[in-house]
Formats: sequence, C-alpha cells, structure tokens
Amino acid sequence: VNGWRTIGVIGGMGPAATADFLTRLVAAVGAADDRGHPRILVDSNPQVPDRNAARRGEGPSPGPALAAMARGLEAQGAELLAMPCNAAHGWADEIRTASRQPFIDMVEAAAGEAAATGARRIGVIAVDATLESRLYHRPLEAAGLALLAPDATAVRRLVQRVKAGETGPDPRREARAIAEALAAAGAGAVIAACTEIPLVLDAGACPVPFIDSTAALVRATIAAARR
Amino acid sequence: VNGWRTIGVIGGMGPAATADFLTRLVAAVGAADDRGHPRILVDSNPQVPDRNAARRGEGPSPGPALAAMARGLEAQGAELLAMPCNAAHGWADEIRTASRQPFIDMVEAAAGEAAATGARRIGVIAVDATLESRLYHRPLEAAGLALLAPDATAVRRLVQRVKAGETGPDPRREARAIAEALAAAGAGAVIAACTEIPLVLDAGACPVPFIDSTAALVRATIAAARR
Repeated sequence: VNGWRTIGVIGGMGPAATADFLTRLVAAVGAADDRGHPRILVDSNPQVPDRNAARRGEGPSPGPALAAMARGLEAQGAELLAMPCNAAHGWADEIRTASRQPFIDMVEAAAGEAAATGARRIGVIAVDATLESRLYHRPLEAAGLALLAPDATAVRRLVQRVKAGETGPDPRREARAIAEALAAAGAGAVIAACTEIPLVLDAGACPVPFIDSTAALVRATIAAARR
Repeated sequence: VNGWRTIGVIGGMGPAATADFLTRLVAAVGAADDRGHPRILVDSNPQVPDRNAARRGEGPSPGPALAAMARGLEAQGAELLAMPCNAAHGWADEIRTASRQPFIDMVEAAAGEAAATGARRIGVIAVDATLESRLYHRPLEAAGLALLAPDATAVRRLVQRVKAGETGPDPRREARAIAEALAAAGAGAVIAACTEIPLVLDAGACPVPFIDSTAALVRATIAAARR
C-alpha cells in the first residue's frame, strides 16, 4: 500500500525481548508520520515450549507452535516473518515449511555482521540450545571464523534474571563480565546471540566490537520489508 | 491456560506509542519467566484513517478499519481488546459492535485515575479529535469535574514531532510548557490523554499530579486479563 510489506513477528521468547524488537523496528523506520510506517503484526506467545528443554530431550518441540504462529500471522496478512529469538531458529525449517512468506533469518543477519568486523574469533553469548544446535557455528565456520562460547552457567543465570524483569546495574555487571571474559579469551568481536542480552549489554560495555542480534534483525527486516 | 486471558492490541496510532504500551504491559506482568506471561496479539496498523481529519469531516471514518482489526484479533484468539490511542476511542462503539470480547476503555481508565486525585479541574493534553468528541468531557463532567483544554496549536505541533520520531530535549521542553500552562490556568491534575505525550512527558516534568493514559490502560488491561 505505502511502500512497505506487512511484517509478522513470531514473538514472546521472551516478551520483553519482543517489545524491545518492536520498539527498535518502529524507530528504524524513520517515517515523518504514522502513515509512512509498515503494518506490523505481533504474536507474543510465551507458551511456546522451552527451547533449551526441547534440545536436551526433556520437553516437547517448539516447532509446531512456531509453525502455527507463522500460519496465523500469514492468515492475518503478514508478507514476511521475523522471530526475535535466536534459540528458536533451531526450528526455523518448520516455520519455512508452514508459511509461503519469506522468513528473515536473525542468525544469518547477526553472523554476517560479525564476519564484517574482520575479527577472526567471535564470542557468541547464547543459551545452551543455540550453541548445541550449532546455529552460529555453521555460518561462522563457513566464513573461516572460530566461535568462542561463554561460561554456560553464567549465561543461563543472566538470561533467567532478565526474563524475570531484572535489567538493573547488577545483571548489567554480569553481562559485562561475560563479554570481558570472551575478549580476554581472544574474541575479536562479541555477538549478543540471545535477545535478552541487549536488554543488559550494549557496545559501550563491551571491550571489542559488539554485534547485537536484535539490531541485526531490525536492519534485515527493514531492508526486506521495503517494496 | 496459565492464569491469563489473551490480550489483543488495536495499535499503530502511532506505532511508537503502541511499542511503548507493549513494553509497559510486559513490564507490568511481573512474571518470573516467559511462561508466566499472557499471550499478546498486536495489530500495529498505521493505515487506520486519520482521526483528526475524520472528525473535521475531511477524511474517511477510522471505524471500519478499527472494527476489522478487532475481528482479526478475535479470530486469532484475543479474549479482550485494548487500544492505546485516545482519539480512536471516538469510534469505540464500532469496536464493541464488531467483537464479542470485552473492550478495555482507556479514556474511562484515565478519567477514573484523574478523578481519584481529588483535583476539581483537570488539564487534558489531547488532540483535536479527542476534545471535539468530548471523550474526556463526558466522564469528567459526570464526576463533577471541569476540563481544561491546552493550546491546541502547541499540542498539534508536539504530537506531530513525536510521531516523526523526535523525543529529545526540545519536544520535552514543549511538553513541559504545555503541562505548566495548564497548571498555571488552575488544573489540579493533568492527563496525558494522547499516547504520544508520555513519550516526552512524565510526572517529574509536570507541576501537578500527572495521569498517564498509557499507564492507566496498562493497569486496566492487566486487571482484566487475569483469570
């Protein structure tokens, strides 16, 4: 209608990360008035089965729920789909099968931005499911880059705090410590590869170039949504 | 499923105000993890016909678009509806007719909070359509309170700036000046009765008790969504 495709957001993982994505997506449009904006349909569904439990074989797959959300957004008019949750990209193929609309891949967007920094070793702040699914290993290794994983216990604990609504100085210190440990271990760049991380970590608190997967998805979504 | 009804958001008026509402709604839930949150469906549709132009008789009614959004959200599973745009409440009856789900009235919520301050004269920072529809006049006058309207030109100019993405010190000064003028004219409390206003004005910048219509809608929505 107005130069934009309708954007469908497969969200709720977690809800605050989805709200952060929507806020930044709207800010990135840069329109002079309401009518210059794209239509955005959001399904913030916190009942999607847990990605980490599923990957451990201790819970149901999130695939069917994600596929149903994709179909619902498409039925409502979405012309492209974005999902601000890295770990859930382990089930992206089920979304691609469920909907005929293009799926904007967050992992591809963030890994591409990391490769563009010129760093050879990339620290990836991600939850267990993301690392165990080798979501970032594959594109980084294909580009000849090495992936450095953070302290899994520290990330698990931090993500849990952020999901509980804690985004103050204390979790911010924890996030900074994780980034600093990756840099000390040789990372030339760090990816916030979990959408809870940018809620407590930004470039200013990271000693090496910082790739924010939410920001990367915003850029890729805006580019794909322009007619 | 988990103690919450599914919330449908009739949004996009404007898009940043809808993102602000979603962010505050999620923060107000206060859950320990994702699964403690309600499902939230958002239709951020910036193509809803302009409320001010419609009220002036210079453009189509937003009613049919709002009704279609309500039906779409209900079809997707929404069990209650909220609309973070005050002016669009002038067409709330068309939403109530279109959907069987409860509609949480933002004007009623904000006017109720204003009456609870004990102030006798209430400054209402709102756009032309809201004032011309007498959306706030009716509940305030029914409670024996007087409505003080702001400088319409100043509000029009400020809302336009916020819709264009300007939320820095300069529009914040304009917003504070509007609130101060209302207080100087005798307002004992001020309602931010346009969802763009809280993006540039908060209680700290208002010399009298400040009612944020977005916050009032968040509270009313959370209360109605609990099973």
